[in-house]
Amino acid sequence: MSQLTGACVFGQSGGPTSVINASFYGAVKAALDSESITKVYGAAHGIQGILNDVLYDMGQEDPKELRRLLNTPSSALGSCRYKLADPDKDEKDFQRILEIFKKYDIRYFFYNGGNDSMDTCEKVSRYMRRAGWECRVMGIPKTIDNDLFGTDHCPGFGSAAKYIATSCMEIALDAAVYDYPTATVVEIMGRHAGWLAGSAALASRFGSGPDLIYLPEQVFDLEAFLTRCEAVIREKGNVFVAVSEGIQDKEGTFISEYASKSGTDAFGHTQLGGLAVYLADQIKKCCGVKSRGIELSLLQRCGAHLASRTDIDEAMMAGMTAVNTAVAGETGKMVAFDCSRRDGTYACRTKLVPLQDVANYEKKVPQEWILPDGAGVTKEFVSYVLPLIQGDCERETKDGLPRFAKLKKIKA
Amino acid sequence: MSQLTGACVFGQSGGPTSVINASFYGAVKAALDSESITKVYGAAHGIQGILNDVLYDMGQEDPKELRRLLNTPSSALGSCRYKLADPDKDEKDFQRILEIFKKYDIRYFFYNGGNDSMDTCEKVSRYMRRAGWECRVMGIPKTIDNDLFGTDHCPGFGSAAKYIATSCMEIALDAAVYDYPTATVVEIMGRHAGWLAGSAALASRFGSGPDLIYLPEQVFDLEAFLTRCEAVIREKGNVFVAVSEGIQDKEGTFISEYASKSGTDAFGHTQLGGLAVYLADQIKKCCGVKSRGIELSLLQRCGAHLASRTDIDEAMMAGMTAVNTAVAGETGKMVAFDCSRRDGTYACRTKLVPLQDVANYEKKVPQEWILPDGAGVTKEFVSYVLPLIQGDCERETKDGLPRFAKLKKIKA
Repeated sequence: MSQLTGACVFGQSGGPTSVINASFYGAVKAALDSESITKVYGAAHGIQGILNDVLYDMGQEDPKELRRLLNTPSSALGSCRYKLADPDKDEKDFQRILEIFKKYDIRYFFYNGGNDSMDTCEKVSRYMRRAGWECRVMGIPKTIDNDLFGTDHCPGFGSAAKYIATSCMEIALDAAVYDYPTATVVEIMGRHAGWLAGSAALASRFGSGPDLIYLPEQVFDLEAFLTRCEAVIREKGNVFVAVSEGIQDKEGTFISEYASKSGTDAFGHTQLGGLAVYLADQIKKCCGVKSRGIELSLLQRCGAHLASRTDIDEAMMAGMTAVNTAVAGETGKMVAFDCSRRDGTYACRTKLVPLQDVANYEKKVPQEWILPDGAGVTKEFVSYVLPLIQGDCERETKDGLPRFAKLKKIKA
Repeated sequence: MSQLTGACVFGQSGGPTSVINASFYGAVKAALDSESITKVYGAAHGIQGILNDVLYDMGQEDPKELRRLLNTPSSALGSCRYKLADPDKDEKDFQRILEIFKKYDIRYFFYNGGNDSMDTCEKVSRYMRRAGWECRVMGIPKTIDNDLFGTDHCPGFGSAAKYIATSCMEIALDAAVYDYPTATVVEIMGRHAGWLAGSAALASRFGSGPDLIYLPEQVFDLEAFLTRCEAVIREKGNVFVAVSEGIQDKEGTFISEYASKSGTDAFGHTQLGGLAVYLADQIKKCCGVKSRGIELSLLQRCGAHLASRTDIDEAMMAGMTAVNTAVAGETGKMVAFDCSRRDGTYACRTKLVPLQDVANYEKKVPQEWILPDGAGVTKEFVSYVLPLIQGDCERETKDGLPRFAKLKKIKA
C-alpha cells in the first residue's frame, strides 16, 4: 500500500472510562514513533476540538507525563457527545473538518469512543473519500458498556467490571452486618446491554455478592421481582440485588421512569437515575425491611485505582494498533479484539472490522447467558468476563493519593 | 496489679469500617497469645450475641484465615445497634449479661465501636463492678466519622478519608470532561462531624477535587450556596461540591429533610439520604446547568481495597493494646491515640482514657479549621488527615478479586 505522510489527530468521545487514556497513550506513542507521521495532535473535546480549531501538540508533552496516562481515568483531552449530521444531507460540519485537516495537513484521524463515535468516524471517512482528501480514519473502541459490535469485548469494560465486582463483594459484607432483615439494591450502568450488571455475578462467585441480578435484555416485572426478594429474605435474612439502570417493563418503559420523568440527551437517550432508591423503597414497602439503594454512578467508570491490568494493556494495544495499521495503509476500520478462552487460557489479538459494520449496532448479552428465571447470569457469562479483570494497575501515588498525568496542552 | 485468669469475649458494634476487623485480629491474636486468657470468644452481633448466648470459639479458627481479617471490610462477627438501658434504672439486660459471663467464666470484655458502643462498655463495666463480678472492660475505638472524644483520631477514619479523597480525584476528572457547564455534588457520611467531608480537600490539594466543601459544623444557607456555585461555574465552567450528609440550616433542620421526611433509628438519629441529588437539582434549577448527585454511601466505609496501611496498622495496634493493658490490670478505659506531627514526621502511640469521658461526646471539626467562608477547610485540617491515609493495604486477590477472610464461626 502507498505511503502516506502527514500529521495525525487523535480525539476522545463519549463517556470516559478508566482506561481510555491508555488507548490515547498507545496511539500517541505509536504516532510519535512513526516516520510517516509528521505531527501528533490531540483534539480538545473530540470532534468539537477539530470544528473549533483547538488542537494540542502532543510532541511537546513530557514523555514521563504521557506515560502516566496509562493510569489516569477520564478523557485527558476532554470529550464530547456531538453528533455529526449525515454528510449526504448536511455538509457544513464536514467542510469545516476538511478545512482544518488541510490547515494542519492531517492525513490520519484516530477517534476513540463507543457506538456514536464509530458513527462519527464512519461519516468523516466517507466524506474525506468523497472530497478527495486522502486521510486514513481508524476507530478505537471504548465503552464500559461493552456493547460494541464486531469485537470480543471493549477496552474500559474489564476495569468497570472489576470495580463493580470488587465493590459488590465489599457491599455484600457491609450490608449483611446486622441481624435484622435488610434489602440492598445496587444500580449499575448499562442502558441497553447488561454486561456491567451481569459482572456483579463475579462477586457472588466468591460467596459475597448479589443474590439477584437484573439485565435490560429481559423484561422486568416489578411484582415478580418483589415476590422473589421476599423469598430470598425469608430464606437468608436479607437480599442483595444488582440492577442495570436500563431495565424496562413489558411495554418498554424504563423502571427508573416509574419514579421520575426526565429529559433526553443529544442522542435522544433517556437520562436515567434514582432507580436503586426506588426499588429499595418498593422492597421496603412490600417486605417491611430496612432497605438501601446505592448507585455506583460515575465511580464505576472512573475508578482507575481498581483498573484491570489486562484492560489497560489491551486499551494501549488498541491505540497502537490503530496507528500502526493506518500507517501500513488501512482506513475506515475499527480496531477489535479476537479472543480465545480455551482450557482456561486466555489470549487476545487485535483485528480490524469495517466501521460501517460497527456504527450504531448494540451488542447485547446473549439470552442463553441469562438464567432461565431472568435473575442472574450463567457460568459462561462469568467465564467470559473473568479474564478481563485480571491483574492490578501500577497505582503510582504521591502522599497516599493517585498521581495522575498532567498534560501541558500546548495549542498547535 | 492482680492477675486475672479467665475467658474473654470480643464484640463489634455500630456501623462497620474497612479496618474494624484489623482491630478484631489484633485483639484476638493478643488474647490467644496471652497466658491469662483461657478462652477467646467472639460475640455474634455485638452485645446481642452475649444476650442471646451466641459466642464463637476463636481458638478453633485457622490462623491464616484470621490474618486475612486485616484486609477484610465490615464486621466479621456481625454488628448491632442495640442500646442498653441505664443499669441504675433497668437491670434486666445486665443480669442476662452477668449470667452469660458466669457461664463462660468471662473475665475480659472487649468492645469495638463508636460513641454508642463506648456507652455500652461503660454501662457493662459499671454494672459488673457493682455486681461484684471481676471483669475487665476495655473499649476499642472505631468510627469512620472520627468523632470520638479523647483520641487524636479513630481507626476507620483514615481509610474512609483515603477512599473519599481518591474517589473525589477520579470524579473531578470525569465530571469535567465535557466542554459545557456541569455541577457535581458528592454526598459524604458524617452526621454531626465533618471530618469525612473535609477529607475531600485532600483531593483538591492535588488540583482535582471539590471546589466547595460543606461541613455540618457550619450553618448551611441554600441561597448563599447557590450564589457560590453560580460564581464558580462562571469562573471555571463547572462546579464540584462535597457535602456532609449532616448539613443543617440555621433552624437545625437537616437539608436532606428538605427533600424527604424520614424515620429515625434506635438511637433517635434521623436517617439521612438523597441530599446529593436534591442539591444537584437545586443547582440545575438555579444555574441551568447539567448536574449530577453522587452518594458515596456504604462504599466509603467498606472500600477495603483502598484501605490505608497506617489505618490498618493502628487499628490492629488498638485491638492488641486493649487486650494487653487489660491483662496488665486496666479496666473501664478506651484505647486512644496520641499523635505528634512535628516537622512533617508523624508518630502515633496508644494511651488509655476513662470510658465515662468518651461515651456519648462527639468531637467536631474545630471552627478554626474551617475556612472563613464556610466552604472548605484549612491547611491545618489537611495536615491533620494526610498522615492517616498513607500506605497501601496488601490486597490479597484470587482471580482478580479480593480474597477476604472466611471464618468457621464454631459456636462455643
